[in-house]
Amino acid sequence: MSQLPKRSENYSEWYNEIVKRADLAEHSPVKGCMVIKPYGYAIWEKMQQTLDRMFKETGHVNAYFPLFIPKSFFSKEASHVEGFAKECAVVTHYRLKNDPNGKGVIVDPDAKLEEELIVRPTSETVIWNTYKGWVQSYRDLPILVNQWANVVRWEMRTRLFLRTAEFLWQEGHTAHATAEEAVAETRQMLDVYADFAENHLALPVIKGIKTPNERFAGALDTYCIEAMMQDKKALQAGTSHFLGQNFAKAFDVKYLSKENKQEYVWGTSWGVSTRLMGALVMAHSDDEGLVLPPKLAPIQVVIIPIYKGETEQEKVLARCKEIKQDLHKLGILVKLDDRDTHKPGFKFAEWELKGVPVRIAIGARDLENNSAEIARRDTKEKRSVWGNQLISEVERLLVDIQENIYKKALDFRNENIFKADSYDQLKDVLDKGGFALAHWDGTTETEEKIKEDLKATIRCIPLDNPQEGGKCVLTGKPSKERVIFALSY
Amino acid sequence: MSQLPKRSENYSEWYNEIVKRADLAEHSPVKGCMVIKPYGYAIWEKMQQTLDRMFKETGHVNAYFPLFIPKSFFSKEASHVEGFAKECAVVTHYRLKNDPNGKGVIVDPDAKLEEELIVRPTSETVIWNTYKGWVQSYRDLPILVNQWANVVRWEMRTRLFLRTAEFLWQEGHTAHATAEEAVAETRQMLDVYADFAENHLALPVIKGIKTPNERFAGALDTYCIEAMMQDKKALQAGTSHFLGQNFAKAFDVKYLSKENKQEYVWGTSWGVSTRLMGALVMAHSDDEGLVLPPKLAPIQVVIIPIYKGETEQEKVLARCKEIKQDLHKLGILVKLDDRDTHKPGFKFAEWELKGVPVRIAIGARDLENNSAEIARRDTKEKRSVWGNQLISEVERLLVDIQENIYKKALDFRNENIFKADSYDQLKDVLDKGGFALAHWDGTTETEEKIKEDLKATIRCIPLDNPQEGGKCVLTGKPSKERVIFALSY
Repeated sequence: MSQLPKRSENYSEWYNEIVKRADLAEHSPVKGCMVIKPYGYAIWEKMQQTLDRMFKETGHVNAYFPLFIPKSFFSKEASHVEGFAKECAVVTHYRLKNDPNGKGVIVDPDAKLEEELIVRPTSETVIWNTYKGWVQSYRDLPILVNQWANVVRWEMRTRLFLRTAEFLWQEGHTAHATAEEAVAETRQMLDVYADFAENHLALPVIKGIKTPNERFAGALDTYCIEAMMQDKKALQAGTSHFLGQNFAKAFDVKYLSKENKQEYVWGTSWGVSTRLMGALVMAHSDDEGLVLPPKLAPIQVVIIPIYKGETEQEKVLARCKEIKQDLHKLGILVKLDDRDTHKPGFKFAEWELKGVPVRIAIGARDLENNSAEIARRDTKEKRSVWGNQLISEVERLLVDIQENIYKKALDFRNENIFKADSYDQLKDVLDKGGFALAHWDGTTETEEKIKEDLKATIRCIPLDNPQEGGKCVLTGKPSKERVIFALSY
Repeated sequence: MSQLPKRSENYSEWYNEIVKRADLAEHSPVKGCMVIKPYGYAIWEKMQQTLDRMFKETGHVNAYFPLFIPKSFFSKEASHVEGFAKECAVVTHYRLKNDPNGKGVIVDPDAKLEEELIVRPTSETVIWNTYKGWVQSYRDLPILVNQWANVVRWEMRTRLFLRTAEFLWQEGHTAHATAEEAVAETRQMLDVYADFAENHLALPVIKGIKTPNERFAGALDTYCIEAMMQDKKALQAGTSHFLGQNFAKAFDVKYLSKENKQEYVWGTSWGVSTRLMGALVMAHSDDEGLVLPPKLAPIQVVIIPIYKGETEQEKVLARCKEIKQDLHKLGILVKLDDRDTHKPGFKFAEWELKGVPVRIAIGARDLENNSAEIARRDTKEKRSVWGNQLISEVERLLVDIQENIYKKALDFRNENIFKADSYDQLKDVLDKGGFALAHWDGTTETEEKIKEDLKATIRCIPLDNPQEGGKCVLTGKPSKERVIFALSY
């Protein structure tokens, strides 16, 4: 197998090749749609299981809403239609028939839908239309529902995981009696996402709030977590929206309050998607392939036997199986690669490419010495361990690798955040790469001028941002806090 | 709340009302699509988790394939297009735009797709197109992949869970080097489905093989499990297909054998869907509502406190919480219904409607006696238990209820299977309801005449069917085994 492209030479190609060669995903014959391969899907399943547990621990339940949304629903919330309903998959017919002029099938013109259906790009409209029937009084609130689903947003320029027409995600949609409760929910879910990103993805994130220009279409406030990739670009890893009463008003969802008054319900929505798979690859991997945080690795430890001849093979494999059993008993996800069709060197490279955190190699000499060679994927350090030490060393390493990957990403990010006090400084930061902390006058006009000129967007206004006087780097108008500018995915 | 319709008076309305009132599902504004509500989805999640574990234990892995399938793919396998590509959702455009003549949005005529996309009704075509890239040699086989997904088959007459345009399911798609292996896989998955149906759904099933007329479009053989509902109609609860080399040939999927020859790959596919939710309701429930087998109940035990005044309330609740803790520690899914907005009688009826297997009621007098009233949902028996007995009694009951529900359904089915040795006898059986075991001459012509005349179909030819000489009930032609005729869902 040829070498991967190097990050330093072609970051974009490096990413594409890792995704393909590590068997995470591939393009499908349908433009913009991807096939998530078993190894990639196993990582996504671990993300799902962890998030699902976190959602349930915070009181949420799952439900399922229709894939299709009537076209007219999108027009009901004025800003939502502007932001969402445009690039989407439109179902216009419900039947095919045999082509009378030849072979194959054609769309049956008699089977045209009265109203076109949109494949959901997000489900606020159809869900709030449903909540209307679920809410009468304050006793029916809050509604704390999450959905795991596929969604479609038509995209012309796609990249596996990062931007695809169809992707998998979860979307939480909650309904509350008061604005305070809804804001608290929005913030709670942002915290859940940040916790997941940092403690499972090993991805340091900045919690912040979007500018009005970058808000979700239909939200009063959009909170987000932003992460830095190894090319120093930003990637939005999750969003949590305070919807105010916008969707309640659009779909007439009211409740009878304790004070016996009809009030509109307050809403939130929040989501993360298979985009996190892209973040995982881009944040941690290296020129040899994937680097997976142990908590999300489908295989945490791989054991590779090294032998010559059948007698050695038998003995070495017996020892490998013992070790496998011992690790398995501790709940560690372990694979013994006993294929006799491939050489150890090939296997080393393959599991390195696939990002398995710990590799154990056992040869004939190790049997005599009761030893094993143990290698960690993140730093590529190798060492020999003896006897019972092996199992405890693997356990220690799995914890250490999780922490080390996080720390490495955190250090990298912190080294690449710079204050920019003038427009030239802002340009410099963006040229060399990194996040720029700069004063901004708070207007969409300035934001868009900078975006047009430098391709950079305001990623967020960090929460708990230090308040300090300053001047907008473009207009010189007064500003009271810095925001984060960066190029982004 | 008014009473449910009675099964004996209007079975169909009884079913519809249970599904709605027990908060399992409801109709959506999109014709034919349903909303699966949290309580219903929680049951489906338990089904998913159990099946997913069973699939993994038999060596399968999950993956994800695109929602959309190019129209031309359906024409590649000749019988598949006949059976499948007709009633389906067709995506023709990828953009909406603001209506220049008013408000709202219209389909942008400039955004017409070159080739229409079909929302998957099943994924054989797009998956075999992918497998072409995954298989070169015998070393790449078998491929043992499953997908959890939504699919769409346009339906005019829909019923919640039983027949909906969009439904959730899993579809396994495997590829093998030999016909024997593929047949063994097909049979293995049929056994997995039967095991799941009987030991989790508490639903006795008959394993069999479909007649050519009822086969999956593109399969050489379709195996199925058939269950009897309380109205004595049949419901197909799962299918497993031996695809031969049909899809391999249609999508040119070949492998280099050990003998160094290019061979077409052998395939299987197998699936169960949210239809199982319908089977669950129709097989076990009664005129008071749902009856859930404990293994699939999201709440296995509900505790209801009975008190007057705050002092009693406090004491009774304290005892209820202790019991809840004790049950929770044993891994039992327990809910304490401590709402003070509803009376115990209301709660009894509500949890009965929702099918919670065991109810515990604790009143003030129980505190003195160290007793509790315990009621089982399936038989509605109540009794008092004292002291430590409570916990062990709940454990025993959960096992007993699971078995009893199964046995009841099995007895009911066995009492309603009849031999029919003439066409009149066949009519009689179908008139009074039940499965008819009858001789059939093996032709599609006879099968279709009977279907037209009596609305009954051949549900399956049971596996391990006794071989016996006989004459077709319609044509009198010779037959060597009986098949099952029944009305069905």
